[in-house]
Amino acid sequence: MFFASDNWAGADDRINRAILSQSGFKSGYNAGEADEAVRRQLSELFETEVSVWFVATGTAANSIALALAGKPGGVAFGHEEAHILVDECGGPEFFSGGRLCAVPGQNGKMDPQALVAAIARYPAGFVHHGRPAAVSISQATELGTFYRRDELAAIVAIARAEGLLVHMDGARFANALVASGMTPAEMTWKAGVDLLSFGGTKNGCWAAEAIVCFKPELSGELAFHHKRAGQLFSKSRFIAAQFSAYLEDGHWLSLARHANLMTEKLVEGLRRSGRARLFIEPQCNETFVVLNTATATALEAAGAKFFEWALPASHAGALQPGEKLYRLITSFATTPEHVTGFLEALERAG
Amino acid sequence: MFFASDNWAGADDRINRAILSQSGFKSGYNAGEADEAVRRQLSELFETEVSVWFVATGTAANSIALALAGKPGGVAFGHEEAHILVDECGGPEFFSGGRLCAVPGQNGKMDPQALVAAIARYPAGFVHHGRPAAVSISQATELGTFYRRDELAAIVAIARAEGLLVHMDGARFANALVASGMTPAEMTWKAGVDLLSFGGTKNGCWAAEAIVCFKPELSGELAFHHKRAGQLFSKSRFIAAQFSAYLEDGHWLSLARHANLMTEKLVEGLRRSGRARLFIEPQCNETFVVLNTATATALEAAGAKFFEWALPASHAGALQPGEKLYRLITSFATTPEHVTGFLEALERAG
Amino acid sequence: MFFASDNWAGADDRINRAILSQSGFKSGYNAGEADEAVRRQLSELFETEVSVWFVATGTAANSIALALAGKPGGVAFGHEEAHILVDECGGPEFFSGGRLCAVPGQNGKMDPQALVAAIARYPAGFVHHGRPAAVSISQATELGTFYRRDELAAIVAIARAEGLLVHMDGARFANALVASGMTPAEMTWKAGVDLLSFGGTKNGCWAAEAIVCFKPELSGELAFHHKRAGQLFSKSRFIAAQFSAYLEDGHWLSLARHANLMTEKLVEGLRRSGRARLFIEPQCNETFVVLNTATATALEAAGAKFFEWALPASHAGALQPGEKLYRLITSFATTPEHVTGFLEALERAG
Amino acid sequence: MFFASDNWAGADDRINRAILSQSGFKSGYNAGEADEAVRRQLSELFETEVSVWFVATGTAANSIALALAGKPGGVAFGHEEAHILVDECGGPEFFSGGRLCAVPGQNGKMDPQALVAAIARYPAGFVHHGRPAAVSISQATELGTFYRRDELAAIVAIARAEGLLVHMDGARFANALVASGMTPAEMTWKAGVDLLSFGGTKNGCWAAEAIVCFKPELSGELAFHHKRAGQLFSKSRFIAAQFSAYLEDGHWLSLARHANLMTEKLVEGLRRSGRARLFIEPQCNETFVVLNTATATALEAAGAKFFEWALPASHAGALQPGEKLYRLITSFATTPEHVTGFLEALERAG
Repeated sequence: MFFASDNWAGADDRINRAILSQSGFKSGYNAGEADEAVRRQLSELFETEVSVWFVATGTAANSIALALAGKPGGVAFGHEEAHILVDECGGPEFFSGGRLCAVPGQNGKMDPQALVAAIARYPAGFVHHGRPAAVSISQATELGTFYRRDELAAIVAIARAEGLLVHMDGARFANALVASGMTPAEMTWKAGVDLLSFGGTKNGCWAAEAIVCFKPELSGELAFHHKRAGQLFSKSRFIAAQFSAYLEDGHWLSLARHANLMTEKLVEGLRRSGRARLFIEPQCNETFVVLNTATATALEAAGAKFFEWALPASHAGALQPGEKLYRLITSFATTPEHVTGFLEALERAG
Repeated sequence: MFFASDNWAGADDRINRAILSQSGFKSGYNAGEADEAVRRQLSELFETEVSVWFVATGTAANSIALALAGKPGGVAFGHEEAHILVDECGGPEFFSGGRLCAVPGQNGKMDPQALVAAIARYPAGFVHHGRPAAVSISQATELGTFYRRDELAAIVAIARAEGLLVHMDGARFANALVASGMTPAEMTWKAGVDLLSFGGTKNGCWAAEAIVCFKPELSGELAFHHKRAGQLFSKSRFIAAQFSAYLEDGHWLSLARHANLMTEKLVEGLRRSGRARLFIEPQCNETFVVLNTATATALEAAGAKFFEWALPASHAGALQPGEKLYRLITSFATTPEHVTGFLEALERAG
Repeated sequence: MFFASDNWAGADDRINRAILSQSGFKSGYNAGEADEAVRRQLSELFETEVSVWFVATGTAANSIALALAGKPGGVAFGHEEAHILVDECGGPEFFSGGRLCAVPGQNGKMDPQALVAAIARYPAGFVHHGRPAAVSISQATELGTFYRRDELAAIVAIARAEGLLVHMDGARFANALVASGMTPAEMTWKAGVDLLSFGGTKNGCWAAEAIVCFKPELSGELAFHHKRAGQLFSKSRFIAAQFSAYLEDGHWLSLARHANLMTEKLVEGLRRSGRARLFIEPQCNETFVVLNTATATALEAAGAKFFEWALPASHAGALQPGEKLYRLITSFATTPEHVTGFLEALERAG
Repeated sequence: MFFASDNWAGADDRINRAILSQSGFKSGYNAGEADEAVRRQLSELFETEVSVWFVATGTAANSIALALAGKPGGVAFGHEEAHILVDECGGPEFFSGGRLCAVPGQNGKMDPQALVAAIARYPAGFVHHGRPAAVSISQATELGTFYRRDELAAIVAIARAEGLLVHMDGARFANALVASGMTPAEMTWKAGVDLLSFGGTKNGCWAAEAIVCFKPELSGELAFHHKRAGQLFSKSRFIAAQFSAYLEDGHWLSLARHANLMTEKLVEGLRRSGRARLFIEPQCNETFVVLNTATATALEAAGAKFFEWALPASHAGALQPGEKLYRLITSFATTPEHVTGFLEALERAG
């Protein structure tokens, strides 16, 4: 009954075997055959030539992407619950030399009007306040939702009108993609995204994160950002091997569909139970649920693993006395037995 | 005949199998059982309690270690051929916010008098020049040598007298260790080293690099440097698994001994050949050799892989017309056949 | 009728004459007799030995002070309208390598409960979020108020309990001081302030800003921050001369009392007029007033100089259609005629 | 007998009076009439439209100029004795996020071949080493010489061929200018200089330093660098006033000619004395002279003020036992009596 995080699972079998298949002597540093093979796979997938930069973590991908937009006084805008704002220990600010601005919005998504208002606080050429530099979109969001096609278009249109770089944090890109019905191209560059943090780790890899760059003219600068950040793996083909197996034959989509399906099953059970209140309508592989603390304690005693979640600022007042907010995450490795086990424990927790 | 780099080899078999053995759900972020197991292994090995921080690359390990010593106007001293000075794209300066100072010295090792002179250019409290902050020792050096016990003591004594943090870049720590006859403790904290960049990648792992901290009082700060740098792997046990297999039963030492032995064999052959001039007396797994460019071309045509090397500034004038400097590296994966093949090709190259 | 800013005035006469009195050859770089004389004046004034660092601007003073508290993942807390958050183009973040957190609160002052809640979002040792580093208090505030003795104590107590450095932005220190009835010592180190940005420019100097440090153990680090930031004036005695004349015989307090008195007169007139609504009860030398835009236009046509002000986020909805918020500032150089002229123009504006 | 530094003198009288002439209410922040007047004066002087940014110190001017050229892995090249490399406490590195590279050369001037060799260590697109970003030329140099027309052209040609930004550190611009016979335009943009640190402080002002930008397309970025660095003076007209008086009617050139002339007289006397050995042929207002330490002590006892100077690395071995290197600087305020007094004391010193 593991619902604590999608990075508690080990790696998917095909991916493990792919690592082993890498043998013999090969050049490294992002410039070998295996690296190039991934670039070709992603270029085909995204229906355009991309450049690809493997990194150790999503924090690194996001930080370097935003560093590319960095300039003195620069401000990057993201949802107030976004990973870049809450969970990266100031990495994006450190690498970019700039600031982040928290934009409010329901269900983990920036409200377009709030974004317009936030940007408007930086009139052009007024050095005292600083100036907008980038907009970062989490897809899926930190609250288990995703921007629909029109929602994505609305945010990007605002960024484009101001000449801002558009970054997408895709730590759970696959989960959002299969839920949205968009193609990879539609969800990124066709919608106006310049740089994507493309995550494979949460969806079945050991350590497969990459910056995917849709603007060839940015690649030269990215190369130096990437190396200086200490992110240029020498034996990079071992990341490449993971990505190749991940992407081949739509394997990554199957893994994500499974994770999302497990959340669907879980949510159905939670609704039926009458013992849990959905905080947000789940759309991918994360469920935010309000439980009585006694119920939560009983679930933990029964062996369920999951975390309490800090109430988002924009939902203050949403809890009754005795209640807390919890997060349940499913992954490629979640089994139907995990779900039914959890729901039965919930019944017993009564 | 692969002598281009020790990171052209894939991973050692035991290490590959160890990755596969990691299955099931486990917490991550450097805080799981597998992570703790490596910390205990290294604490035993180094005969003292250490803290351990997995990172993606040696550049990251070095940069974060030097960032810990960072202060306004701070200067870190290293050999003029050191990786931090030449091959890290300004990473140490970026992370530390400070500067590096190149110290000359024969055979890749800082000359103690030159180090004293370099430090003396920063009189205490004189803000205009800045101030010394750290000394970084490459062990093995970039030129395939290592600091002997007394040489190490001499450098550390200078650093200690000035109250500077002592860092060791151990990208090829194992190769130096088995060549030196010192114990891991003697080569580090017992000699006065505070922080070690401990490399496993060049010696048989896929991606196993760590900062090993011998000063418990620095660990709290390291944790935040490490996370902010985008180096906190979520599924960190996959690095841990590599290190555990690497360290178990002295496997890492066997791998390094093999690499050094292959260099010994190669060097014997080079001496015998009369067609190559040793530039520096090799002590670990790297050979710097002067060849006629025609000879080098013939070797490459025969399938040998190796790189030309820029002549170190301190050896200006060491080459005759028609000659160039080349680097030959052996690794855990180099076979006797690679060596004999190379030497035979050298014979034929005439 | 100049109410645009207290830095539109030139310099006070005594201060101008003091600059001229500096002649002959003297050593510089913060280490001459004139520099030391200011340090002694301020030490006497603050009833404790202080160190003093002249800087070009308040932005520099604030940025360097917060840089001293900087650490990876570090967060400094200030009121959402504070100069460091709104008007310094990311300087404090750049110099400190950290982040700022906006704390809400009425009348330009941080609400203690909001500060506690903001700090609580950073649980100790949890690297993902980062960690609190400093609290910055604007005295006077950006909205023309000041923290009373008990309000100051409440904020500092929270900071102290968390081990945070306490910084005071005293760009209008004198105006707050004479309004508060506290002594300089009571308003700073006796209340728990570690570092003060002490501003003289807005109150009659040309360019007299300084970091006043109440913690001797921080002085050594400050020296290097200060020089590296490009703030170590060579002919520093020319700043010293301004400060000496400013501080002598309580001249600075007279200047500030005059500025505050002019605001009092202005406020009385505004109240009587029935044509202006006070947005916040003025306590120092700034008045925030709601006017019909037609009225504002008429005043400007009559020659009055003043700026529109962006509505603070915490006062959303405070304006009626046709209304805007404006800021009126008085200074040492404001004359009673400026005030009566403005009030008469207001009458005429209908 | 003040020869310690050209910043030991106070300010020139005309400049002092100009500060006093600034009265009344005026807008500030580099955007007032007085600021614009200086911009026009400098545009006329340099025979092209320039943008001008007042800063507190030469360190700030140099650091911001080089920050403009900053990019990940970027390297700025300057003479090994240049102020940016030796006397700015790491400021240029901090602001630019990059590195400096020391280029050797006789008489304080970069040797063109050495510059070519230094740049050549960074092959294009090889991320490991980093990449060239800027060349910084000190005019006058730190050793009291200046680049002649052809020397300047040679250095700039190398920079231009590599697409590097060209910066000139003109802390003693006026002294070099009057010595060189070039026009301001010839010595800067006509020669290929992009950005100039234009110093007035050492030549008669209190605090008048500016970045002069010859490339309009860089101005927008400079504005944000400048503000973020804490260098945007509120009452900027007080810097403007100094510059206006400084530049009017060629006053700045008269001041510099006087300083240079005093050095000429001093040098004549030193030559005649037989008690001092010129270390470098003086060309502006600085004399580097070798004295017996006993002689130096006697001069100090007689009241002469001057500093010992660290022997440049490129002149190792230039001193005999009992000798040291000293620096003597003249300024706008040096009188013939200072010079004759010094020479008489030298005679008496035996």
